[in-house]
Amino acid sequence: MRTAGVRPAPDTPADQATVRRLNLGLLMRSLLAGGPRSRARLAQDTGLTKATVSALVTELAARRMVTEGAVDRGGVGRPGRMVEVDTSVVRCVGLEVNVDHAQGVVADLTGRILARRRLAIPLADLGPALGIARAAELAGALIRDAGCDPEQIETLFLSVPGMIDQDAGILSYAPNLHWRQVDMAHALMGRLRWPRARVAVDNDANLGAMAEYAIGASAGSNNLLYLVGEIGVGAGVMLDGTIVRGRMGYAGEVGHIPIGPPDTVCGCGRRGCWETVVGLAALVRNAMPGGVTAGEALPRLDMAQQLGAIRERAGRGDPVVLAALADVGRWIGIGASVLANVLDPEVIILGGYFAELQEWLRPAVTAEMAARVVAEPQACRLEFSLLGFEAPAIGAAHAGIDLLVGDPSLVAVA
Amino acid sequence: MRTAGVRPAPDTPADQATVRRLNLGLLMRSLLAGGPRSRARLAQDTGLTKATVSALVTELAARRMVTEGAVDRGGVGRPGRMVEVDTSVVRCVGLEVNVDHAQGVVADLTGRILARRRLAIPLADLGPALGIARAAELAGALIRDAGCDPEQIETLFLSVPGMIDQDAGILSYAPNLHWRQVDMAHALMGRLRWPRARVAVDNDANLGAMAEYAIGASAGSNNLLYLVGEIGVGAGVMLDGTIVRGRMGYAGEVGHIPIGPPDTVCGCGRRGCWETVVGLAALVRNAMPGGVTAGEALPRLDMAQQLGAIRERAGRGDPVVLAALADVGRWIGIGASVLANVLDPEVIILGGYFAELQEWLRPAVTAEMAARVVAEPQACRLEFSLLGFEAPAIGAAHAGIDLLVGDPSLVAVA
Repeated sequence: MRTAGVRPAPDTPADQATVRRLNLGLLMRSLLAGGPRSRARLAQDTGLTKATVSALVTELAARRMVTEGAVDRGGVGRPGRMVEVDTSVVRCVGLEVNVDHAQGVVADLTGRILARRRLAIPLADLGPALGIARAAELAGALIRDAGCDPEQIETLFLSVPGMIDQDAGILSYAPNLHWRQVDMAHALMGRLRWPRARVAVDNDANLGAMAEYAIGASAGSNNLLYLVGEIGVGAGVMLDGTIVRGRMGYAGEVGHIPIGPPDTVCGCGRRGCWETVVGLAALVRNAMPGGVTAGEALPRLDMAQQLGAIRERAGRGDPVVLAALADVGRWIGIGASVLANVLDPEVIILGGYFAELQEWLRPAVTAEMAARVVAEPQACRLEFSLLGFEAPAIGAAHAGIDLLVGDPSLVAVA
Repeated sequence: MRTAGVRPAPDTPADQATVRRLNLGLLMRSLLAGGPRSRARLAQDTGLTKATVSALVTELAARRMVTEGAVDRGGVGRPGRMVEVDTSVVRCVGLEVNVDHAQGVVADLTGRILARRRLAIPLADLGPALGIARAAELAGALIRDAGCDPEQIETLFLSVPGMIDQDAGILSYAPNLHWRQVDMAHALMGRLRWPRARVAVDNDANLGAMAEYAIGASAGSNNLLYLVGEIGVGAGVMLDGTIVRGRMGYAGEVGHIPIGPPDTVCGCGRRGCWETVVGLAALVRNAMPGGVTAGEALPRLDMAQQLGAIRERAGRGDPVVLAALADVGRWIGIGASVLANVLDPEVIILGGYFAELQEWLRPAVTAEMAARVVAEPQACRLEFSLLGFEAPAIGAAHAGIDLLVGDPSLVAVA
């Protein structure tokens, strides 16, 4: 098993290999963004010489990252064979482990999803050892669904709901899972034995932000903020195309920023944490103080059931539920305004349960942001995610693709 | 005049020139960090071959960025001449334009300050044309103080208290100067006619953060947050060694994050802006509601006089002033906690007037942060700046040095 190198070591000498790696990446990005083209056309579009493009294409083909197919008769000059991204071999897996479910996707180099699986399972109750065993089973089933051999899996990126030590591939602390210091990467690969897979671990909100950047409604916006509403609330912050992590990897831990009502006590022991007014737990408590039915405490239901009950009551105009939703929307808008003023993103994307309940949350969120964001109107767009609860797994697959595209030399020659 | 290119164009082909540029920068950084050494030793320390080091040193010497001096007899093997940073020719100027003053520094490539000047002048009243004329005079006097010819000035970086369009070198809007859409770079260079100077404009808080990174008490911390207290409050955010700007350059505009008391009305028309409780104007209002002496309204005094009056009263234990300072400290701590939780910096550095009054502010700031920052205790240090109000000018000089060190080929061969 090799742990994925996340960023290049600084201050290493540059040489011909550096040039080649940079240009392999340039060519791959051009193919992914612009589609199949002849070598001559690729040279035009990238600014590389034709001879360089030919050498790079040969190398990428040997690594099974591109293939040459149909003859292009559309362009000027001598017809050439079309170079395109090879979608037949290399596979990237994204796997999310969360409190009450695990889910994963298998993608090819273009990001096309070849298989997806979701398993409702109380991972918080199972503990790390059993939990990882079940996640590994899910991953095994997933690649069988996709019809691929373990040898094809070049990356496995894991999404966890907590803080991570990215260099070591270790989950430092996931408060809602109650897992601490779990070496996810080694534990999973010890079970999976995928011979070529590079493994990395990241936070679910960060990976959600990567999914939005890759395929969301604002794909390609490289200053975006992804806010995910779950039991608590988390943020993935992308600035200038890079996920912001902070020194300890705690950046985006927005649940406990002290902007809520000063008298509410949070589970963390502090007062006024934002999570106390925008987490799903807060919404459920305020929307349905008596539970779903007599005798049934709502927190016993899983998140999907809780959301279903809230949607149903909101749909028939229950005033208590509508007031609770408006209140949550207002608090989302207040916090989003703080983040917009600090970070100046192009777009704030609300995911998780926020997206599920968007029709009731949108008016209050929009009103608060319009009143509070300093940059001129429309400088920061508000969106609701289209990716649902699958965003972290999709982002994890794309993080693997990005790693390979950024440095195609990581993929061994066939 | 050439406007400084701030970041390289993405997706351009890499070639031998890329390699050379990267390695020239590597060698310069090694010399700046580790001091003079023989070519052989530089090869060891950087991982470059001796032949490459020799070629790079020859090029850097031709550009007057390094010089070869005394023979090193301390190392193993054949003695070689010591390569060191040439501090005799290349000069970088940092120039700050602010509401009531202009100031500047001239530095050599190692960051040593060769001259400094400060001019108290009501630039907000003069308007852009006259203000820029006076700033240009200051800059001219400054390089005469430093004993250098205009030809030696390779960079002029400007600090302004407002939002900038960095690519164009334009000040978009400086609220307290009341300047809008001022082409600072061209206007200044039209007067200065420094033949080689690359010019760039940046925000004072961003440049203050760069100064802290370069020479502050936490120099080298590449996740730092610099909060500057002036009439309002601003933030310079450095993450992973890069200043965060956001999409429009508004990142760090923290003065209007809505975390203050909900009933206070800000100059911007909103309620609850942080600036209403931590800006110097708020402190002055609360500390000395009656003014300094009968009949003298405190806001008429300049910032230094206001601070002097507050220090004097705090020093003799004036209970109203002490209570006002404790209140400001508490609000600084609340806002700093929000920023710490969102960004996870290694250190938060309080500059500007916060540093001037640190003995009275520190207890409350520290207490609030200890109570509110989520990462484990001590994960985010609190510091007060040692650089005073000169930080933006120093940062501007260092931003120029960084530009040249990052790409020595910008400096023409002598």
